[in-house]
Amino acid sequence: MTPVPGSAFKVAAIQFEPEFGAVDRNLAAMEAHIRAAHAQGVRLMVLPELADSGYVFETQSEVARLSGPIPGGPSTDFLCSLAAELGVWIVSGLCEVAGDAFYNSAMLCGPDGFIGGYRKLHLWNRETLFFAPGDLGLPVFDTPLGRIGMAICYDGWFPETFRTLADKGAQIVCVPTNWVPMPDQPEGAEAMANTLHKAAAHSNGLYIACADRVGTERGQPFIGQSLIVGPNGFALDGPADKTSERILIAEVDPSGIAAARKISEYNDVHADRRRDVYS
Amino acid sequence: MTPVPGSAFKVAAIQFEPEFGAVDRNLAAMEAHIRAAHAQGVRLMVLPELADSGYVFETQSEVARLSGPIPGGPSTDFLCSLAAELGVWIVSGLCEVAGDAFYNSAMLCGPDGFIGGYRKLHLWNRETLFFAPGDLGLPVFDTPLGRIGMAICYDGWFPETFRTLADKGAQIVCVPTNWVPMPDQPEGAEAMANTLHKAAAHSNGLYIACADRVGTERGQPFIGQSLIVGPNGFALDGPADKTSERILIAEVDPSGIAAARKISEYNDVHADRRRDVYS
Repeated sequence: MTPVPGSAFKVAAIQFEPEFGAVDRNLAAMEAHIRAAHAQGVRLMVLPELADSGYVFETQSEVARLSGPIPGGPSTDFLCSLAAELGVWIVSGLCEVAGDAFYNSAMLCGPDGFIGGYRKLHLWNRETLFFAPGDLGLPVFDTPLGRIGMAICYDGWFPETFRTLADKGAQIVCVPTNWVPMPDQPEGAEAMANTLHKAAAHSNGLYIACADRVGTERGQPFIGQSLIVGPNGFALDGPADKTSERILIAEVDPSGIAAARKISEYNDVHADRRRDVYS
Repeated sequence: MTPVPGSAFKVAAIQFEPEFGAVDRNLAAMEAHIRAAHAQGVRLMVLPELADSGYVFETQSEVARLSGPIPGGPSTDFLCSLAAELGVWIVSGLCEVAGDAFYNSAMLCGPDGFIGGYRKLHLWNRETLFFAPGDLGLPVFDTPLGRIGMAICYDGWFPETFRTLADKGAQIVCVPTNWVPMPDQPEGAEAMANTLHKAAAHSNGLYIACADRVGTERGQPFIGQSLIVGPNGFALDGPADKTSERILIAEVDPSGIAAARKISEYNDVHADRRRDVYS
């Protein structure tokens, strides 16, 4: 069934544990989670960062071995076929090769195949040793579900990421991520990653669906706590726990964004900016 | 004792309940709280928005009656004298008149008198009926304590406020505020005002001290939950509760900001922006 543009639909943030280097195993796990979400009526699936390859690279040759073209590589082809079979849209983080360069990327596909790619703009820690910084800007794709943007993990630390996507008309931002512990995170405090995405959703009137991974890879722990946030900045589902695989599901209604931005009789939180003043 | 520039000092966020229209009573209450904080070694005091006048204006003539020049008005003179006597710095929200215009303003004074003013850039709800939007930009003042910026309430809903202040070298942003409930705030969820300022502190490596009011005025409830946040984005003191007067106190160490911004071996959260991409 083709959705009516702008009508409500379900999004899933799929929190799972990829295994480093096990691309076929990871794609099979993604497929199982996507089929499970589809069985619950989900139309848009969001999977973690580098979901096909795993995250903790130690050499450039590992990156080369585990990356593929977007589109045209085996991971993208696999997800595009699944999206076509199920009639769903999928955003996943994938390890990309393009010529001599490697990118920490995400791709969006739908029932009619590949739609577009995104390359992480803000590289985190040792990613800078293996990946080139993104060179595709912050694209927004018009789909029958609504206007979809993508951001990856550390991109979310920059309010400008969501500002730019909102200014380009995004209604939902899909965030494949591999969140790691922040320095000085106090025991019991909300994960800063959650705080940042709630703030961004509120200030921009955006839906944001963050799919994190869990587990520890080559000594690097990941924090789970995937989250789907509504355009008022409050959680629609999640945060998930820190260690379990879990599918978060929430309803997205792009037609409600304008009302969410009207946070008082005289205010629109997205329109009230004083661009004459900012640096 | 004059502080050594850049060394640690204590800041207080003073949560109290002004009474509408009772300027003398409000200044006396502010004095009592400031003296109490001074007795605990606080060097920088932050008081709520419109702390001298109260908040819920119904007519322009009320604003005219309850406003004063900054500097040179009775509220500013009173606080400057107190700062000089105690050897402290004070930031307070005040109701300002300047010629034919009225502003929702804040002022900073210190042991040597008036330092500077700020006029709220982003007006909230019915403030737009009574106040002119701020026309002083986002100034940052170099003091013996460190570089101090100011923002008022709804200014904090705009990430650009803190970006601009940080780019201008602010180390601590003092936020006089009169936070009100947000639409659709779920029972038990963190106040969006708290979420926004934690995110802003983290993304910019700033200290942020928010002094909110409590109580209900002419039917408008205020939410308390004043907060002092460190440059890693986590609370140093607070949030205070929703209804009680309370003095939050935290230590500010401007020399620690550079380290707080280095959130991984290869990252500086304030420097890693991709300004080539943003809208």
